[in-house]
Amino acid sequence: MGNSAVLELAKDLISRPSVTPEDAGCQDLMIARLEAIGFRVTRLPAGGVENFWAERGNAGPCLCFAGHTDVVPSGPLAEWQSDPFQPTIRDGLLYGRGAADMKGSLAAMVVAAERFVALHPGHSGRLAFLITSDEEGIATHGTRHVVDWLREHGETIDWCVVGEPSSENMLGDVIKNGRRGSLNGRLTVQGIQGHVAYPDKADNPIHRAFRPLADLVDQAWDAGNDFFPPTRLQFSNIHAGTGANNVIPGQLQADFNFRFSTESTPESLQAGVHKILDASAMRYTIDWQLSGPPFFTAPGTLVAATQKALQAVEEHEARLSTDGGTSDGRFIAQLGGQVVELGPVNATIHKINECVAVADLEHLSQIYTEIMAHLLEAADDH
Amino acid sequence: MGNSAVLELAKDLISRPSVTPEDAGCQDLMIARLEAIGFRVTRLPAGGVENFWAERGNAGPCLCFAGHTDVVPSGPLAEWQSDPFQPTIRDGLLYGRGAADMKGSLAAMVVAAERFVALHPGHSGRLAFLITSDEEGIATHGTRHVVDWLREHGETIDWCVVGEPSSENMLGDVIKNGRRGSLNGRLTVQGIQGHVAYPDKADNPIHRAFRPLADLVDQAWDAGNDFFPPTRLQFSNIHAGTGANNVIPGQLQADFNFRFSTESTPESLQAGVHKILDASAMRYTIDWQLSGPPFFTAPGTLVAATQKALQAVEEHEARLSTDGGTSDGRFIAQLGGQVVELGPVNATIHKINECVAVADLEHLSQIYTEIMAHLLEAADDH
Ligand SMILES: [Zn+2]
Ligand SMILES: [Zn+2]
Repeated sequence: MGNSAVLELAKDLISRPSVTPEDAGCQDLMIARLEAIGFRVTRLPAGGVENFWAERGNAGPCLCFAGHTDVVPSGPLAEWQSDPFQPTIRDGLLYGRGAADMKGSLAAMVVAAERFVALHPGHSGRLAFLITSDEEGIATHGTRHVVDWLREHGETIDWCVVGEPSSENMLGDVIKNGRRGSLNGRLTVQGIQGHVAYPDKADNPIHRAFRPLADLVDQAWDAGNDFFPPTRLQFSNIHAGTGANNVIPGQLQADFNFRFSTESTPESLQAGVHKILDASAMRYTIDWQLSGPPFFTAPGTLVAATQKALQAVEEHEARLSTDGGTSDGRFIAQLGGQVVELGPVNATIHKINECVAVADLEHLSQIYTEIMAHLLEAADDH
Repeated sequence: MGNSAVLELAKDLISRPSVTPEDAGCQDLMIARLEAIGFRVTRLPAGGVENFWAERGNAGPCLCFAGHTDVVPSGPLAEWQSDPFQPTIRDGLLYGRGAADMKGSLAAMVVAAERFVALHPGHSGRLAFLITSDEEGIATHGTRHVVDWLREHGETIDWCVVGEPSSENMLGDVIKNGRRGSLNGRLTVQGIQGHVAYPDKADNPIHRAFRPLADLVDQAWDAGNDFFPPTRLQFSNIHAGTGANNVIPGQLQADFNFRFSTESTPESLQAGVHKILDASAMRYTIDWQLSGPPFFTAPGTLVAATQKALQAVEEHEARLSTDGGTSDGRFIAQLGGQVVELGPVNATIHKINECVAVADLEHLSQIYTEIMAHLLEAADDH
């Protein structure tokens, strides 16, 4: 493996247009490389989604690298400086859809495993890969499905590194050791339709809604803690009205989302919402949908190994964060192990002209190798 | 003219499917009848809308009967018990689109004029008709246009009876001697779009809007007066959101309408709204549209003549009201004369199976004749 092994594999993966939930042959490529170095691979397709679990070693703690081969759509092709599915290097940056999220990470993981296994063929514990092609989409047939399968088969994951692009300004400045939970509510306020000239014969749901919904917005749900910011509620959609400006509508619908810390639970938030709304004269219903529970990995073995690896390769440590959206880490954490997310700089993800620094790909692979070395201390070395 | 003259003309008019802004020959029918009894008719078509002004007599105060030949669409034909454009009598009720709003009134007016002129061919003052086919639609090329023409030609209207269906439970129980004004506002609240997971990088216009808009709803704009209920504000539409439940939208739009008494003016209401909204931190703009100023006819000559006519025919007087939607009375009142609305029971207007009592048509025509007699005291009688 030359220095360009990570770059070459990243380019191979980017050139396969695996727009979610397509895999476009990316996993075949990874599986061939992993089987060549002794991984046992189980393909776990479900609902048109490609997934696989790969494992090397027979017993002991399991270190898993997790990621996804699917990418978000390219957006308007005309705005890309080069074809999003023709990986192109300009000024030290590799351009292409998925370069940063997260085909660069996948290439770095595979090459890291190749290097680690070459040096430590009889490593302790188990080294694993959990790969899906359904992270950017609905995400029901992806990691969630594999985690169910692992649970059924009594498989455990002790430490998991998710390759999501966690870095903000430079490689490894931030690792995520948790994520806030996400809870959606769809509120329907019931009124009585009528004519604006006869408001007493109607019941305006828009008028009913303003103050109770303002009270929801102003509520302090919790104060957060050392690792999580306070829980926040945001309305995303509100709709009422027939279009005519002389008709009082019969109904109002509004969507809101909680990003919540480990200080709140879906149950506590639902109860809090109902308490506020029930205090009003509003007739309403709410459809609740738990998008993801929060997860949190306290500083410990995995965080320490990751910081040591960063120190070794980048000569700095990372800031721990639980900020931002949800990730598949929420599903893996349910198996009870430690989970961190460490990947490239996320400045261009999901955008036009997505890119990753070529140098960062190589460094990221070295960091992953270091983590493997720290956690799966090679038995044959001692 | 037999007893069935009003009924026959009403049926003739209903059988012409004059869905707004179509006239479908209704005005030809009316014009032929009015010219036959000495009216001078000026056709005033504009923008595809048929209108006419008809006048009889040469000097003195002008009593005008006003109305529209257009009707609202029939709605689902299958729900009508008989074809909406085939006038049908069942159980003493005449069914058809426009029966109550307001082809029955038009027939009553024309036959009333025929009877009055037959008895008083040399009546004092002037008797007039102002007829449009654009009342149920946009209403820009209808009565408004004729009123502009009258103003340009120095014509005056001292007393105007609009044939709108003013009655609530029985013929003549209510006459309208005014209408509230109608003022529309389209509010746009400006925010900054973002992701619900990063609310500090966004500015949620939904959150901004709740309390200021609640303050608008709770504001007492005026207390009304003896003739008008208090001014009311109603929101009719509110929309914000991309549809996605993880995106904070960049903008919110809401429509509201004032029905206002003569205690407020469009200017006072606009100033009041801006005062409340400017006290908030909300960035917003409002597009204002004055749909109609209020009008009011104090009890006087016209109201007295109308009450006397009701007393003579129905043996009761009417309650005066300024309630309900707008009407073309708002345009006619701008000429400075007195305006009342008196027509059939409005329970079925704009609905499936619209109907009017056959007996009420004849009575309404007699009431109109009485009003003519009271106000245009026939010179040849004395
Ligand atoms: Zn990703
Ligand atoms: Zn009408």
